[in-house]
Amino acid sequence: MNVTSHDVAQLAGVNQSTVSRALRGAPGISADTRRRVLEAAESLSYVPSDAGRALSTRRTGSIGILSGELTNPFYPELVEPIRESLLAAGYRPVLIPDSPDEPFDPDRWARGVFDGMILATAREGSHVAAGLRRHRIPFVFVNRAISGVEADRCVSDNLAGAESAARLLAELGHTQIAAIMGPNDTSTGEERDTGFREGLRRAGIGMPDDHVERGEFTFDVGYSAATRLVSRVSPTAIFCANDVLAFGATDALLESGASHKTMLVGYDDISSAKWRVYNLTTVHSDISRMARTAVELLLSRLAEPHLPYRTVTLDTSIVRRRLLRP
Amino acid sequence: MNVTSHDVAQLAGVNQSTVSRALRGAPGISADTRRRVLEAAESLSYVPSDAGRALSTRRTGSIGILSGELTNPFYPELVEPIRESLLAAGYRPVLIPDSPDEPFDPDRWARGVFDGMILATAREGSHVAAGLRRHRIPFVFVNRAISGVEADRCVSDNLAGAESAARLLAELGHTQIAAIMGPNDTSTGEERDTGFREGLRRAGIGMPDDHVERGEFTFDVGYSAATRLVSRVSPTAIFCANDVLAFGATDALLESGASHKTMLVGYDDISSAKWRVYNLTTVHSDISRMARTAVELLLSRLAEPHLPYRTVTLDTSIVRRRLLRP
Repeated sequence: MNVTSHDVAQLAGVNQSTVSRALRGAPGISADTRRRVLEAAESLSYVPSDAGRALSTRRTGSIGILSGELTNPFYPELVEPIRESLLAAGYRPVLIPDSPDEPFDPDRWARGVFDGMILATAREGSHVAAGLRRHRIPFVFVNRAISGVEADRCVSDNLAGAESAARLLAELGHTQIAAIMGPNDTSTGEERDTGFREGLRRAGIGMPDDHVERGEFTFDVGYSAATRLVSRVSPTAIFCANDVLAFGATDALLESGASHKTMLVGYDDISSAKWRVYNLTTVHSDISRMARTAVELLLSRLAEPHLPYRTVTLDTSIVRRRLLRP
Repeated sequence: MNVTSHDVAQLAGVNQSTVSRALRGAPGISADTRRRVLEAAESLSYVPSDAGRALSTRRTGSIGILSGELTNPFYPELVEPIRESLLAAGYRPVLIPDSPDEPFDPDRWARGVFDGMILATAREGSHVAAGLRRHRIPFVFVNRAISGVEADRCVSDNLAGAESAARLLAELGHTQIAAIMGPNDTSTGEERDTGFREGLRRAGIGMPDDHVERGEFTFDVGYSAATRLVSRVSPTAIFCANDVLAFGATDALLESGASHKTMLVGYDDISSAKWRVYNLTTVHSDISRMARTAVELLLSRLAEPHLPYRTVTLDTSIVRRRLLRP
């Protein structure tokens, strides 16, 4: 016998749509009703078919999270609280790390699969946002955004955060300052670059072009860029546009013997930044709050599709750990 | 007008099942056919519905990966090559980090959702394997397995690997040896414990109970366990049952000033183990090969459901980095 949701509804004494919503974990179902439905489903050995469910309700219950590569520790820290918030709201989070080999293609993968998406990685020129809009799939940007794309977003105040890093270095007396900047085609890379230079300008400190390196936000880029900077310009301080770059730079300084005369400043304050092996002074973003806010933005967008778009910018603060004066 | 796969098939000059397989990225479709189908689909603005696809073929094209928490860096390193191998084979990998708040429930989530699953985390007493078997969803264990559950598996030779760590410490002359072991209810925790003690026994070295701490495979456990060991028994070497425990122990040694008189040995050789801040001597597992092998085991299981179960055990080797003699 093929058990259907109709059988479960009869046994639980609720209607069929309540069965579907209770099993999906959707909000608006009382704990008692949910328990009754689960017990009825269990006693009948009923297993809902996701496929049938999606066709019948036009809601999949799934939210896609497009993230950067998970071996970059920033992304697990951003993605975990997003997942938890979505689960708590009764959605099924589906994580899609953006892989260079097979970039996410909204035309193939999004319609009928996701009720909405959270874009935790975004680059200028990406077609993801346009594709989602074409398929009328709501999305929010978190951490990064794409210029010119109107959408809900929750980001760190990268301009002010990077400016505060420059101000700290100036206060400590550094004048021989170098920087390892992130990619130009990301909003985080671009804004942290602009903000840091603005901070130096206000402090009356110059930073010649040969004091600046640029690349992806990775350990390897931080390592090789810092190696070049140390041998070329012997800076007394290096601003790293994220913590992972600073971790790579730490290795380079240890290798070159410059670690006791070169101060590093990072950005993000991921959990390993406070580990004693790094003890990294950095610009703190409230990553968990950024994640939760992005989920709230998406859920209210799903509930009210015609809300005006909102940008939530989170303040940053400097976390003073290892400090060196020149 | 509602475009169907029939329209796409007509335009591309292929049959409907070829359209579905080409769009899903299934193997066995020539590049030329795939291109024709994609062009036809694009020119008709056809978007396949996953839901309809799953109902019509009883294949979802998705493989679930159940992993540990992604903020533990071991899991991204294991999961990324699994994802890449699945993508290369034409499957859609869906990552499910096992969260204590909402443990994965195969009764709710697996049937009609996944063609198969890769279990990258497993604990004694978990109902996941039994649930998958009940729903006839093929699965493989990778890295860890559950005793008594017959299934394909690819694991590191934990017994021999941990034994080689004990042998190294004995060769270096250590006798005052402590250990931070993993959880008892994981095969990795249990086997590394057994293997390390066996290695010590063969070398004629004792390890009293107060020299052993035990806990989850996390940074925080490594930090607090090493703090206690250093103050209680002043070991000259600590075996850590994975690298993440050793990272936590590194912080504890730095804090207590014991880092120049206490050698650490880890297990796994995740990529950060070689960073200069750690320079960790560790037992190397070929994580990427373990991942690829697990995918191969699952794909051959999907193709031939009645194959006998296979266990692939990968050899380990000791990577000698920072070495200290007592």
